[in-house]
Amino acid sequence: MPVTPALCVCSSFNRTQMIADIIGRGQFSEQHLAFKDPDTEFAEVKASGKPVVLVVLGPLGHAAIKSLGDDYDKPLEERRLKWVHSCSAGLDWYRLGELEREMVGVSLTNGKGGYNYLLGQHVLYSLLYFSRQTARQQRNRNDKKWDPFDLEEPRGQKVGILGYGEIGRETAKMLQPMEMNVTGVRRTKAAEAVDEYGVTLVSGDDERDRVIRESDIVVNILPATPETVGLFNAARFKSMKPNAIYINIGRGSTQVDEDIAQALRDGVIMGASLDVFQQEPLPKTSSLWNIDDSKILLTSHNACMTAKSFYETVNMFSKFAEGYLKTGQLDAYQPDIQLGY
Amino acid sequence: MPVTPALCVCSSFNRTQMIADIIGRGQFSEQHLAFKDPDTEFAEVKASGKPVVLVVLGPLGHAAIKSLGDDYDKPLEERRLKWVHSCSAGLDWYRLGELEREMVGVSLTNGKGGYNYLLGQHVLYSLLYFSRQTARQQRNRNDKKWDPFDLEEPRGQKVGILGYGEIGRETAKMLQPMEMNVTGVRRTKAAEAVDEYGVTLVSGDDERDRVIRESDIVVNILPATPETVGLFNAARFKSMKPNAIYINIGRGSTQVDEDIAQALRDGVIMGASLDVFQQEPLPKTSSLWNIDDSKILLTSHNACMTAKSFYETVNMFSKFAEGYLKTGQLDAYQPDIQLGY
Repeated sequence: MPVTPALCVCSSFNRTQMIADIIGRGQFSEQHLAFKDPDTEFAEVKASGKPVVLVVLGPLGHAAIKSLGDDYDKPLEERRLKWVHSCSAGLDWYRLGELEREMVGVSLTNGKGGYNYLLGQHVLYSLLYFSRQTARQQRNRNDKKWDPFDLEEPRGQKVGILGYGEIGRETAKMLQPMEMNVTGVRRTKAAEAVDEYGVTLVSGDDERDRVIRESDIVVNILPATPETVGLFNAARFKSMKPNAIYINIGRGSTQVDEDIAQALRDGVIMGASLDVFQQEPLPKTSSLWNIDDSKILLTSHNACMTAKSFYETVNMFSKFAEGYLKTGQLDAYQPDIQLGY
Repeated sequence: MPVTPALCVCSSFNRTQMIADIIGRGQFSEQHLAFKDPDTEFAEVKASGKPVVLVVLGPLGHAAIKSLGDDYDKPLEERRLKWVHSCSAGLDWYRLGELEREMVGVSLTNGKGGYNYLLGQHVLYSLLYFSRQTARQQRNRNDKKWDPFDLEEPRGQKVGILGYGEIGRETAKMLQPMEMNVTGVRRTKAAEAVDEYGVTLVSGDDERDRVIRESDIVVNILPATPETVGLFNAARFKSMKPNAIYINIGRGSTQVDEDIAQALRDGVIMGASLDVFQQEPLPKTSSLWNIDDSKILLTSHNACMTAKSFYETVNMFSKFAEGYLKTGQLDAYQPDIQLGY
């Protein structure tokens, strides 16, 4: 590599400085940080003519890529942006469909894998939150009421995992001791009918719809793609079992938030654990905020956020960078921009 | 068996009729039920001179055994009570130490094993309830506050399971995908150092005390015995880590309830999940009712109560009875009255 590239970091959620600190000064001699307005904050490095590696997280990443990639009319080898790393696994924040010119010839990597454990755990937690009737236990505590009621029994219940990939498998692994009946729905047909965690594998839209109808626990890990937009709408919830729990740890665009609120209010389904929403932060005007704790577990897209997981996924970048700075080549999974994962 | 014995059922918690209904009329031609006052309610069967099989659950069982066993001055073969079955695994409710004469020559069985799954699950649930800061998520929901805070990371945390038997092993099985560091403390030395779930096995009081001091999660599954009374008192909590979570799914007599409340109020430990108490129902005057949801998960000794588990553990009795009524012999585990389990 002739010139060591400058490192640019731009994150939403007040994480820019944290990411820069974890990466440190060792690998890149220059750090440029953007907190709010990448166009202004990256002006100096843009003018310098240096090659740039960009680390992004959250919606602000879109503006950062757009700004650093605005020299797309130059020949490839003279262009500034060499590599974009997303600290998240999902890429939809960056709206890459609108940045096709900017991304031509730019390497792209993501935090795939770093959050599997915590997301699988969130599914298990959500399931237990409802089956053990947390809100009722808490109300009893508050009312000083001794109330030895019967809990729900997870054993034998049907779990449907939509978008059964890496995170789905980790979820299945966590659910294994629960002795439930788990089906994983994939886009494409799998080689085997049952996987190592005892999960029945199915594929295609008809099977997906059937699994959603028949499951007691519906786990949405679908990526944000044109096909999945608004999949979980009023009609979909009506097709589900009245005792169903809907859990979304995937992407908010795959659901219609107000339809979930309506379905919970009307008892169309029993409960929902939502970590993602159509718009984030969830607007104050959303009806979801008004649903009772007995029916909703509402988290702020932090189901996979621990100090350790954040550190580890930023460190993934540093590991990739080590090879990249030596060889100029990236030895890392590069996600499919079209598929969005 | 010359005469089919009469079935007597006596349970606390309004469960007498439910137990009798699950057993049904098939095996025993006569059913006698006691709901409140076994002496009066069993008067008829006592006068009849028939042999009796008694099924008990909860503190009322003590009075039932005392009443039906009051012919202890007769020769063994002429005595009424042949067999007592406890639907619970624990026997301390019956205060058998005070019923030594009544129990001479009487078979005793219990619901051992039937609750392992649900109790192991309760430990996992309690752990996630705190690590995922349920109370904070709920408060944010109530305040319409988007707050993507960092969660606790269970991976690598130390779990100490005191009284590591069947329930402990089921707990360890459930914890396995959590990638924690689990130690099981037993009364007697185990043959192996590490068991099939990766649990380090230790024994003796010194090791027990060390594990309590060093664990992030302390799981109390100790039986109620003279040695364990009040083991978890103020001094014990002071010996623990300030971030420790104390979980008791065993017996309430092993702890001092007011000392737990004090330890939580003063931040001596971080949280407690309590399913059992020194006195049950927990009196209205207990300070534990006043601890905030962020520090306590208080359940009404129903951590192992589901319709299915109740049905299954009563059915254990029916299975034992099948052989017993044919052969007059019990082919079932008979707990050690001295040990209390």
